[in-house]
Amino acid sequence: MQKIADLRYSSAVLQWDQETYMPVKGAAMRGRQLATLAELAHEQFTSPQMGSMLRSLKERRTLSAAEMRNVELSLQDYDKNCKLPASYVRRLSEATNLAFHAWIDARRKNTFSIFQQSLQHLIDLKKQEAEYLGYVHHPYDALLDEFDKGQTVAKLDNIFNSLRPRITEILEAVASRPQVEDGFLRGNFNKDAQWALGIEVLGLMGYDFEAGRQDISEHPFTTNFSSQDVRVTTRIDEKDFSNMLWSCIHEGGHALYEQGLPAGEYGLPLGEYCSLSIHESQSRLWENCIGRSNSFWEKYVYLLEKYFPEQFKNISTREFYKAINKVSPSFIRTEADELTYHFHVIIRYELEKMLIGGSLEPRDIPAAWNELYLKYLGIIVPDDRRGCLQDVHWSHGSFGYFSTYSIGSLYAAQFYAAIYGNSGSIIMPSNDLDIGKAAGWLTQHIYPHGRYYNSEELCALATGEKLNPDYFVSYATRKYKEIYGI
Amino acid sequence: MQKIADLRYSSAVLQWDQETYMPVKGAAMRGRQLATLAELAHEQFTSPQMGSMLRSLKERRTLSAAEMRNVELSLQDYDKNCKLPASYVRRLSEATNLAFHAWIDARRKNTFSIFQQSLQHLIDLKKQEAEYLGYVHHPYDALLDEFDKGQTVAKLDNIFNSLRPRITEILEAVASRPQVEDGFLRGNFNKDAQWALGIEVLGLMGYDFEAGRQDISEHPFTTNFSSQDVRVTTRIDEKDFSNMLWSCIHEGGHALYEQGLPAGEYGLPLGEYCSLSIHESQSRLWENCIGRSNSFWEKYVYLLEKYFPEQFKNISTREFYKAINKVSPSFIRTEADELTYHFHVIIRYELEKMLIGGSLEPRDIPAAWNELYLKYLGIIVPDDRRGCLQDVHWSHGSFGYFSTYSIGSLYAAQFYAAIYGNSGSIIMPSNDLDIGKAAGWLTQHIYPHGRYYNSEELCALATGEKLNPDYFVSYATRKYKEIYGI
Repeated sequence: MQKIADLRYSSAVLQWDQETYMPVKGAAMRGRQLATLAELAHEQFTSPQMGSMLRSLKERRTLSAAEMRNVELSLQDYDKNCKLPASYVRRLSEATNLAFHAWIDARRKNTFSIFQQSLQHLIDLKKQEAEYLGYVHHPYDALLDEFDKGQTVAKLDNIFNSLRPRITEILEAVASRPQVEDGFLRGNFNKDAQWALGIEVLGLMGYDFEAGRQDISEHPFTTNFSSQDVRVTTRIDEKDFSNMLWSCIHEGGHALYEQGLPAGEYGLPLGEYCSLSIHESQSRLWENCIGRSNSFWEKYVYLLEKYFPEQFKNISTREFYKAINKVSPSFIRTEADELTYHFHVIIRYELEKMLIGGSLEPRDIPAAWNELYLKYLGIIVPDDRRGCLQDVHWSHGSFGYFSTYSIGSLYAAQFYAAIYGNSGSIIMPSNDLDIGKAAGWLTQHIYPHGRYYNSEELCALATGEKLNPDYFVSYATRKYKEIYGI
Repeated sequence: MQKIADLRYSSAVLQWDQETYMPVKGAAMRGRQLATLAELAHEQFTSPQMGSMLRSLKERRTLSAAEMRNVELSLQDYDKNCKLPASYVRRLSEATNLAFHAWIDARRKNTFSIFQQSLQHLIDLKKQEAEYLGYVHHPYDALLDEFDKGQTVAKLDNIFNSLRPRITEILEAVASRPQVEDGFLRGNFNKDAQWALGIEVLGLMGYDFEAGRQDISEHPFTTNFSSQDVRVTTRIDEKDFSNMLWSCIHEGGHALYEQGLPAGEYGLPLGEYCSLSIHESQSRLWENCIGRSNSFWEKYVYLLEKYFPEQFKNISTREFYKAINKVSPSFIRTEADELTYHFHVIIRYELEKMLIGGSLEPRDIPAAWNELYLKYLGIIVPDDRRGCLQDVHWSHGSFGYFSTYSIGSLYAAQFYAAIYGNSGSIIMPSNDLDIGKAAGWLTQHIYPHGRYYNSEELCALATGEKLNPDYFVSYATRKYKEIYGI
């Protein structure tokens, strides 16, 4: 298992390099190198010896509970991976690599059609993958399950159908009130100063720079090659203060989780994260519940004075807090406020469901995308770059990923309530926001478990209750009522 | 063969990352990841199927000459690799990784003893490797052969014994003359300006930045992951102008060779470099014959005016040319002049011969090193950092590598004569040094052949004569006579 992890982590190094430093002409051969690593890891993991070893281990009575869980989860993974032919794994890896470069090019040139053919190929492959893996109700279920074990279209439809009207209600209340001024978040924010601020914030979150580093990439991401080498990336827009900082905190939340996983379980399920929903709960908890709280900025307002004294000299902490929480329908998911964010996710979820279900053709994505943005957010998408080309995920073949962002946000609100209490006002005095308290709680309740529990079990264990979207609705209602004086 | 190349190039990406960007705590797991890749590449390459496929291909009458040569060379490599057990390959990879980090630490702390144990382990492994590979006269022959096919202690003793007195003669003549002033090469040379100068010089050499990049590392090196992704690294000393620039040109020479190898032969012998001696001939040709010529600086003196106008405002091109060719025994190989350089190599060669032969123990390296520096260069080594800890090579397990630096320099002088003619004065008017002429000659005579010929055959084909050290002696004699007015 650890040798297979070595191969997977080697792929991750090659991918990290590809998205940060690789020269353009390196792409073609990098694609085949990644495909070979993926194919080999798959071959090694799905060898008959692996299966018989795992099955015989499962019969051993002398294993500890943790060892047994490693065996069970490995066997689940084994059985699942055996459903995918090695040739399929290689083709997917190669197609993903081509699609990534096509996406980069399409995005640069703001033209979806450049990406369309690669995307079509990837979707065909993912449909085939759903058939290989099997499903009961909807082929998309097979893909959702890969990111969050047990997740289904039925469950998500249920959650999103209940969430949508409740968010719409808050949104409408917000729209009826005077709007928040946030013009001062745009202007001229020096690149180096933004970078230094990001690094300082990562440091105060507890990110260990001896076991990680930050670099620049087209699309921010976190990756790791062990729990001792967990890297984040960011992008900087000199005209927009919000663009980098919360993306930095977001990736930092992911990274803290990876750095906190049990190092001794390298390559084994108990050394891996629970699910992508739980991973997203970590990033969203830090980015939003903490990083957009008034208490955080009451405490760390000196950072603004340190890095951008001119830009913020006439802005009060209260004004700043309101601005970074301004609710307004917009085009870019990663820059969306906490409320409209869910619509960005729901739109992608609905499109993917149709693409994998076969009721939407890839060539119709831009039109369908723009239609849904008009329907849910009432805005007209001006071009593909600010529309269906904005996210890297599809170019990675990650269909079924987006919904974990919303579900993660719901978990985040539930964890936040467990950490800081849910009874008092959403406006805490700065002394009450001790971020060490969040770090401590996560280190105790989330990080050490690896994949021992699935998302729902972990949530129940940590908070005493399984996923309950009311925490998010209550958090959001109180927060925006206070900000907008509703 | 191409899948095996994918694994080897993946290792190269992990190694590049390790020496440029990897956070310190990443080292331990990186070591095992590299070991797994090395072990897998070895396993795949030495599988019985590989052997029988290669042997059956060798019998095919329909192969082209190039295809047949790929088969023959692969079979040679196969037979050689089969002599090394997979467990040995893994142990060597792990030991190398530990040794590399011990070396970094030892060098930082200027203490050989920190490195000693890892080095001892590596030397034991390399002795064992020599036994596995087999040799006729001296175990060191088996290791020399890995870097330059057919190279032996007997041949090298012969070359070095003839070279040493002839270089000493020039050195003594130089010592009897008034010394060259080069104080202006030390001072304060801004890091960013040095970096930009290095990038510009790489560009004018013809290095393709779309198929490569430069980064900073402890020890400059060139690596590649295909002929379309060839990377160089450098280091910058703000107090010393010479430190970076010629190292940059040196690595650039290596990189041009790799970028020039046939891209269509990815993963096959004809897509690989001939030998490390020929590789070094490329770096030394650019670094010294071209990069330290008066003609180069008559042509490109504007670079000094552009990047360091203050530092060089009262320095004539003639003074600059003399300074960058100052002959003076010194401690650091990579900063040595073209004459004393050979002694740095000969010292390492003699030490390795004793270490592998068993007549020198690793713990005695510092004493033996310092003794030889006193004997050949008349200087007293002040500490390990400026002594036996200066080079990365041993920490990589590269025993048998150093001699290729001297042999490469001899090839370089011979190629230089073939390109620009050997009859005229060493001082060419700047118009006569068209670096495009060198690039063109190398592109015609060296790059396209890959490993088709061995070093001696390639040299004979390119210059009409096999390796003849007289070219170097004649080049050096004329150059230093002119500079020192001998």
